[in-house]
Amino acid sequence: MNICAVVLAAGEGKRMKSIHAKVVHKAAGRPLIDWVRDALLEAGATDQAYIVGHRQEEVRAVLGEQVAYVLQEQQLGTGHAVMQASHFLEGRDGCTLVVCGDTPMITGDTLKRMLTEFCESDCAAFLITAEAPNPTGYGRVIRNGNGNVTSIVEHRDATEEQLAIKEVNAGMYCFRTPLLLSALGKIGSRNKQKEYYLTDTIEILIKDGHSVGAFKTGFEEIIGVNDRVQLASATALLNSRIVERHMRNGVTVIDPTCTYIDGQAEIGMDTVIYPQSYIQGETWIGTECVIGPNTRLLNVKVGNNVRLQQIVAEDCVIDDSASVGPFSHIRFGTHIASGCRIGNFTELKNTTIGSNSRMVHQGYLGDVDVGSNVNLGANCSVANYDGQVKERTRIGSNVFIGTNSTLVAPVEVKDNSYVAAGSTITDTVPEFALSIARARQINKENWVILRNRLREIREIKKNP
Amino acid sequence: MNICAVVLAAGEGKRMKSIHAKVVHKAAGRPLIDWVRDALLEAGATDQAYIVGHRQEEVRAVLGEQVAYVLQEQQLGTGHAVMQASHFLEGRDGCTLVVCGDTPMITGDTLKRMLTEFCESDCAAFLITAEAPNPTGYGRVIRNGNGNVTSIVEHRDATEEQLAIKEVNAGMYCFRTPLLLSALGKIGSRNKQKEYYLTDTIEILIKDGHSVGAFKTGFEEIIGVNDRVQLASATALLNSRIVERHMRNGVTVIDPTCTYIDGQAEIGMDTVIYPQSYIQGETWIGTECVIGPNTRLLNVKVGNNVRLQQIVAEDCVIDDSASVGPFSHIRFGTHIASGCRIGNFTELKNTTIGSNSRMVHQGYLGDVDVGSNVNLGANCSVANYDGQVKERTRIGSNVFIGTNSTLVAPVEVKDNSYVAAGSTITDTVPEFALSIARARQINKENWVILRNRLREIREIKKNP
Amino acid sequence: MNICAVVLAAGEGKRMKSIHAKVVHKAAGRPLIDWVRDALLEAGATDQAYIVGHRQEEVRAVLGEQVAYVLQEQQLGTGHAVMQASHFLEGRDGCTLVVCGDTPMITGDTLKRMLTEFCESDCAAFLITAEAPNPTGYGRVIRNGNGNVTSIVEHRDATEEQLAIKEVNAGMYCFRTPLLLSALGKIGSRNKQKEYYLTDTIEILIKDGHSVGAFKTGFEEIIGVNDRVQLASATALLNSRIVERHMRNGVTVIDPTCTYIDGQAEIGMDTVIYPQSYIQGETWIGTECVIGPNTRLLNVKVGNNVRLQQIVAEDCVIDDSASVGPFSHIRFGTHIASGCRIGNFTELKNTTIGSNSRMVHQGYLGDVDVGSNVNLGANCSVANYDGQVKERTRIGSNVFIGTNSTLVAPVEVKDNSYVAAGSTITDTVPEFALSIARARQINKENWVILRNRLREIREIKKNP
Repeated sequence: MNICAVVLAAGEGKRMKSIHAKVVHKAAGRPLIDWVRDALLEAGATDQAYIVGHRQEEVRAVLGEQVAYVLQEQQLGTGHAVMQASHFLEGRDGCTLVVCGDTPMITGDTLKRMLTEFCESDCAAFLITAEAPNPTGYGRVIRNGNGNVTSIVEHRDATEEQLAIKEVNAGMYCFRTPLLLSALGKIGSRNKQKEYYLTDTIEILIKDGHSVGAFKTGFEEIIGVNDRVQLASATALLNSRIVERHMRNGVTVIDPTCTYIDGQAEIGMDTVIYPQSYIQGETWIGTECVIGPNTRLLNVKVGNNVRLQQIVAEDCVIDDSASVGPFSHIRFGTHIASGCRIGNFTELKNTTIGSNSRMVHQGYLGDVDVGSNVNLGANCSVANYDGQVKERTRIGSNVFIGTNSTLVAPVEVKDNSYVAAGSTITDTVPEFALSIARARQINKENWVILRNRLREIREIKKNP
Repeated sequence: MNICAVVLAAGEGKRMKSIHAKVVHKAAGRPLIDWVRDALLEAGATDQAYIVGHRQEEVRAVLGEQVAYVLQEQQLGTGHAVMQASHFLEGRDGCTLVVCGDTPMITGDTLKRMLTEFCESDCAAFLITAEAPNPTGYGRVIRNGNGNVTSIVEHRDATEEQLAIKEVNAGMYCFRTPLLLSALGKIGSRNKQKEYYLTDTIEILIKDGHSVGAFKTGFEEIIGVNDRVQLASATALLNSRIVERHMRNGVTVIDPTCTYIDGQAEIGMDTVIYPQSYIQGETWIGTECVIGPNTRLLNVKVGNNVRLQQIVAEDCVIDDSASVGPFSHIRFGTHIASGCRIGNFTELKNTTIGSNSRMVHQGYLGDVDVGSNVNLGANCSVANYDGQVKERTRIGSNVFIGTNSTLVAPVEVKDNSYVAAGSTITDTVPEFALSIARARQINKENWVILRNRLREIREIKKNP
Repeated sequence: MNICAVVLAAGEGKRMKSIHAKVVHKAAGRPLIDWVRDALLEAGATDQAYIVGHRQEEVRAVLGEQVAYVLQEQQLGTGHAVMQASHFLEGRDGCTLVVCGDTPMITGDTLKRMLTEFCESDCAAFLITAEAPNPTGYGRVIRNGNGNVTSIVEHRDATEEQLAIKEVNAGMYCFRTPLLLSALGKIGSRNKQKEYYLTDTIEILIKDGHSVGAFKTGFEEIIGVNDRVQLASATALLNSRIVERHMRNGVTVIDPTCTYIDGQAEIGMDTVIYPQSYIQGETWIGTECVIGPNTRLLNVKVGNNVRLQQIVAEDCVIDDSASVGPFSHIRFGTHIASGCRIGNFTELKNTTIGSNSRMVHQGYLGDVDVGSNVNLGANCSVANYDGQVKERTRIGSNVFIGTNSTLVAPVEVKDNSYVAAGSTITDTVPEFALSIARARQINKENWVILRNRLREIREIKKNP
């Protein structure tokens, strides 16, 4: 059956208190509308029309060219919104999913199961419903003996008996497309504001003698995001689903409530993730790694048996059995080969490090190629920028660079050479050479006495 | 009506297991007694007397000179405590709030609404009550048909039927002041320990034919802090109230359960706060910033569109569109102008940085004035302290300082000049000059062979 | 009474999705089996036999030589497992605890109280039971009028009435040892897979006219760990027990849900622990310290009134009133004496620092002895490794080392001496001397104009 979808994404979302469109706010790292789009795709609704209005350019920027857009200039209710999509719907057979752009927790699996049930039924439409712990404010779903829907009663119109009903309308529907179109043609505006309600199509279909079914799902799936409190709840739920999936696949997550994993990440068996780790973007992590605490990885490829602690890393590759941190920043274009030790207070950018090399104590390497089995002493840094251009530095294999050395790019330090501590290297260091570029030491005897500079002894103070 | 308050703050709080007075322990960053004081002020009780005893100097240090103190030398019960305040109360008309110093969760709004109801009533006193999920240990509130209180029954004295009552006495009261004074005069000591209970005043008022009302609030508001477990619960609740307020104002908080915001903070719309952020003291943050993760701000003014990641900052100003971190410490007296990039492993103290300047890779600046459009290479640091005095360093605008340079204060690097990498600068660098202060490089050919220093190739080891 | 224990630890634990044995996975920092071992020891069962099978070498590596091991080659059920321990049990009087290796939450206190009740009873065996919120899948415990067990009914065999019973069998038992042995001899295999169930011994004992009692405990104590989701739950509960114990002893824990403390740690009164602190291994912390946020301590001895912020420390000692961080790494063999200030982006390894010394801004010290009242300027580092051997550096007391200095080991800087900023020190600095090892500054006037290197002024860009 042809399945298409209409997504309501025109609303302003005043309670978000934002200059941005509500549906582009992010839950668990992705725009609300992105979660909905993916759920629809998973359910087979590849043909999607988005009703846009308020800050439509932001919605278009998120969803791109793969979906259709329909402008709703005035926002006159959910029925009016879907009416704008008439051209999109006309001539279609099959069924149409109508969902809200601000319900990121609905799953593709739920939509798919509803569609299956719907197709097997003779109903003109299906609602998604849920048992609300506190149904206040929601439309109640009234069912008849065989389970079909007889009406949706708004909270304000409900009788005492109806108010006791906990099953509520999620505002997500599935319609036989031609019947939706004809029902849309019949709804009128209900009030002085000339608003049209989508629930009226359900009433019209029932009045016209059609059956309407309901597919009940978990309440958490139908909650819309209307303010930042709900946004945070959505983030927590969506994240916990992802984290739990990884745990069930064999990843140890020390504290799932403060571990944040994006949907695309892949993580190998027996890897352990400490709290305050962020696994973001297209990040792949191998087996038996230890990640975190306080580690943020964005688009990072991590091998097996890697140890990352207190680091930030983006757009880089870290191979098997390497160890990075604590307190490092590994930036774009960096490749750390297997067995490397990259340590405390180090920053690498656009740099390759050969296998088994060590840069354990501070320093900055930018635009550098380092060979294998190299040892960089504390605080070796390159001057890769001269104020006008950035140049590369090349360090061969089996090289030893002394503490507090500076390499002024472009420069080459060849295989099997040494650089003495405290040197500023501006010219090629040949293979097998020791290069020194520092001044000789002079001791000015008794200077402290002559200048009266003996250090005063201070008392130990308590921490405030 | 004249509203005054008596606050019980003399107790030792043995279960806190502390050398400090219970009420000076901090919940959500502020002393317990401070939360109570503010709630009273919000309710209009500007005239406050604190009953102090155990470690009273600590309580006085927190509350200062704005409130009155009454010493309770021996702690003989709540009634005895309030009796000590007789001088404070004498001659007053209006009403008196009596609250505990260890109930930080009571809100000014609740006290205010109780006072309004109380004033409109003909009652001699009001209790604050709440429905306790588990009322064990609490005094139960017995009401008559019109809702007035007929008695407070201690848990140990309650009948089976009374034990089933969930409404409990919070230990917070509002009295007509003259009636409180006269009732206090009538209570006697109940037991061998010669203790006087404040609840006896309620009984006395009722016996004397007065009405006593009750104002019910949420149970969470009345919980006292008696140990560190309750202290942690109070912190969680008080913090969640503040965080939720910011969320409702348009701030995205990724994970409200591990974001900690002080009451005074102001945060602009569409700012996003990542977990493990601490927004403390008088910190103001503009709109569209991204703060955190793992960022602690204390008394920091942050402009709009600022990016702060993995930093600690105190008593400083960071202007629009600046970016700081990851891993930086910005200290007192620092002003980072708009558009600056302050990066990895950098520390600034008492330093001004002009707009659009960059210090992206390591280094320490203390007591430095930096102009605009300056580039500091990796690990440029100043020697601002010579062992005796601290001196300032001045760097003009459009200056380029090479990697691993040292500026020895007091020194000036004038506009449009360059400092070569690896230099130690002790004298003025004139405008348009390049300053170099490093030794020439010498390569000792074949030193590695002659000294037999070829580096051994090691095997790649697994991380333990 | 002689108490021994048989622990079932042979299972594969397929749902863990791991190459490791289930019982060696860690909850709250310790292997599951380790928690069980300690609970048994606390209950007095020093004589323990572990039924091992799947990856038995890992179980043996965790438990060492203090316990007995019995190999179960084929895994044919819980009864079969205990049957393998017949040799271990034979000839013993007293009682035998039979527990699972994957239930880390059972406490020694519960086992002890059960044993006491068991010994006072005339029962042949006791079960541990609990009220399960959702008993699906568990065996239900059927009791008679006097509270004794009449049978254990598996979920699949239970009647509607029995399914309503919430009391479930924990799979933990206490037997009179001779009766266990004789009952084991009577159980047969139940099914085609030739599996033997331990619950059959209970049925046999009852049929033989013995009484079987039940000891009910909290459900949380009996939950087994079968997958990583349950592992995370166990970690949360076990950690919360430890954290709560410290809070009750007078430690302020700002957020107990994200503070992680190992069982061995000792923490003094009035110490405050900020979130994301990890107190691991044999770590002792004194009174009135402030620890965290984001601080990891492993085997660290911390004095009183110490301030640690954003640091990682292992196998080191930090004395009274010292302050370390933010952003430091203190490594093995380091001793920081009282009153020291070790600050931003500093790393110490195998180094002693005398009292009241300061290393506040960056730098690496490895294999260094520093006296008292020493000031190290920003980024002083040692070159302790020459590519072949590591050597020590000695810095006396009252020494001042200038910014960006390098000390090349082995070298000594004697008491009361100064090292000028930017120096590389290779020879002894005598007492009272000022040592300088840097080049003189040369200013190349108008170089910027001659080379056409005036820096372009860039526009301020918004953060992305």
